[in-house]
Amino acid sequence: MTLINLTIALDVMGGDQGPHVTLPAAMLAIENFPNLHLLLCGDESVIVEELSKNKFYPHPRITLFPTTQVVEMDDKPIFALRNKKQSSMRKTLDLVHDGQAQACVSAGNTGALFSMAHFVLKTLPGVERPALISALPSNKPDQHVFMLDLGANVFCDSSVLYQFAIMGSVMAKEVDGIENPKVALLNMGEEDNKGSDHIKQAASYLQANDDINYIGFIEGNDIFTNKADVIVCDGFVGNVALKTCEGVARMVYTQLQEIIKKHFLAKIMGKLLSRTLKKLFKPMNPDQYNGASLIGLRGIVVKSHGNANITAFYTAIIEAITEIERQVPTKIKDKLEHTLCHK
Amino acid sequence: MTLINLTIALDVMGGDQGPHVTLPAAMLAIENFPNLHLLLCGDESVIVEELSKNKFYPHPRITLFPTTQVVEMDDKPIFALRNKKQSSMRKTLDLVHDGQAQACVSAGNTGALFSMAHFVLKTLPGVERPALISALPSNKPDQHVFMLDLGANVFCDSSVLYQFAIMGSVMAKEVDGIENPKVALLNMGEEDNKGSDHIKQAASYLQANDDINYIGFIEGNDIFTNKADVIVCDGFVGNVALKTCEGVARMVYTQLQEIIKKHFLAKIMGKLLSRTLKKLFKPMNPDQYNGASLIGLRGIVVKSHGNANITAFYTAIIEAITEIERQVPTKIKDKLEHTLCHK
Repeated sequence: MTLINLTIALDVMGGDQGPHVTLPAAMLAIENFPNLHLLLCGDESVIVEELSKNKFYPHPRITLFPTTQVVEMDDKPIFALRNKKQSSMRKTLDLVHDGQAQACVSAGNTGALFSMAHFVLKTLPGVERPALISALPSNKPDQHVFMLDLGANVFCDSSVLYQFAIMGSVMAKEVDGIENPKVALLNMGEEDNKGSDHIKQAASYLQANDDINYIGFIEGNDIFTNKADVIVCDGFVGNVALKTCEGVARMVYTQLQEIIKKHFLAKIMGKLLSRTLKKLFKPMNPDQYNGASLIGLRGIVVKSHGNANITAFYTAIIEAITEIERQVPTKIKDKLEHTLCHK
Repeated sequence: MTLINLTIALDVMGGDQGPHVTLPAAMLAIENFPNLHLLLCGDESVIVEELSKNKFYPHPRITLFPTTQVVEMDDKPIFALRNKKQSSMRKTLDLVHDGQAQACVSAGNTGALFSMAHFVLKTLPGVERPALISALPSNKPDQHVFMLDLGANVFCDSSVLYQFAIMGSVMAKEVDGIENPKVALLNMGEEDNKGSDHIKQAASYLQANDDINYIGFIEGNDIFTNKADVIVCDGFVGNVALKTCEGVARMVYTQLQEIIKKHFLAKIMGKLLSRTLKKLFKPMNPDQYNGASLIGLRGIVVKSHGNANITAFYTAIIEAITEIERQVPTKIKDKLEHTLCHK
């Protein structure tokens, strides 16, 4: 098997921990993927020092792109777009735009990344708005549910929701290998008369499209039941649902640990329980269960969590590799071209 | 201490189980609250047979209001409003409207109950829309968080969100005894620039009102952290968030039970774990953690879950008792009169 060459641009300065997280993750990826070439964008002296210390500089598969600005986590998107043209985040996107990189990964400010990516890369034909998508855990082991939009767009009208459904369907098929993925709209009830007018309109578009396996409305309690492989909602609702999951998982985890502390028998088997609890809650932890993607763009942009740890950022790089290998943007473009004539 | 007389109308036919759940709960309430008078609305023969069998008929504190129609769980609200005027649901609301009952409880179709209650009872002065509110568990034992709207209104503009904040604040104070409850708006970020225009506008109304302890925006992961005592959102978002909580809790519960089955040590202490797990997840179970209320109306309407069991419906009756004793509608009216001049 011949490995295809992979070139990915990394925003070294992005995220709460910046280079302390992104550089170790980068070195790990270089070690594990012999066909990977990384373009590191960020503060030259910091990168050279850290890589040299670990004997990763110079390296035939690492190229430096020195930048002088950093997009801060509290920069407003419009400010970052206008005033941070020399930033590491912007550089990673420019490299994708210029064809020097096949994908980019950033753990930086989500709003700024979204605006910059939208501006630099532009959307695919037929896509009005890019969406933030992630593969969430489900109650069946090793099965995911793809949910979008997770917060890139406050409000989405019926056409945008329809496009999201198509894009999500492609992601589930290409990234997780699900044939004919079941697509649902997240709503406040399962009945046809429930929800807002734009959701009902999106449902009618999807019903009319034989190319999408649309199964109807689902409610929040069915996000994790594998009823659907792809769940579509606007960014406000998606963000609240995702964050709510984190909150519930954290509450349950804390209370279970209290039980372990208190009960005699549980104390004895504390280690076993702790280990299994960690395993159970890992997928609910944004630091571990990571690598959301901005899709609908003319390029691959993977968004790692702001407070990602090394494993999480490394996972995001792997996500970018998968999307390059499966040619996700091309597949989305093809599917949209094929399905939009059904609308 | 002199007990005040309490008169509550029950929709005997409402909910998935109807009289099988509502009548045993009613008898339990009659037994436990010597000052409670129940007005039972529903099919006369069913009620008389069931109560007689248990020696609760005739009873000095039970009055029958025979009705001939039932609002089905899939009746559309507008259909129920127009065509189910002789239903048990409608009768309970009429009894509150006529002053014969101080409160009513139904486990029936939420949309129909909302429309009928709105039509029959009307909103309090200054209230544009009634809201569905419930006390959710939090990660501090015995502390709740009041969340509204949980699904009565698909969309809420800034004025409606502002009114909900005031109503929620009264509920938290009167029902849970929280002095100066912390009120937050649920948003897709904590920063001032996040979210839709109507949420930002509601925030500015609340900031300008010294009478409300407004603490700002919170995200989904802080619903259960006691950061806020009252969380305000539109009905779509609230419904999705609440149902998502149920979904996560169920997934975690299922997976923990799998662990108990698999692990040798866990199997030994299976009973203890099962018991503690049940205790832990009980508040996340809509059948147990129950008694949402429709507030903002000129009367008390408690909504029990559609698939409520006896305990859940009994809990909803107790919720109605509390709201009568604390005079919730009057307190909301007073607070609104006092605060609306600040807007």
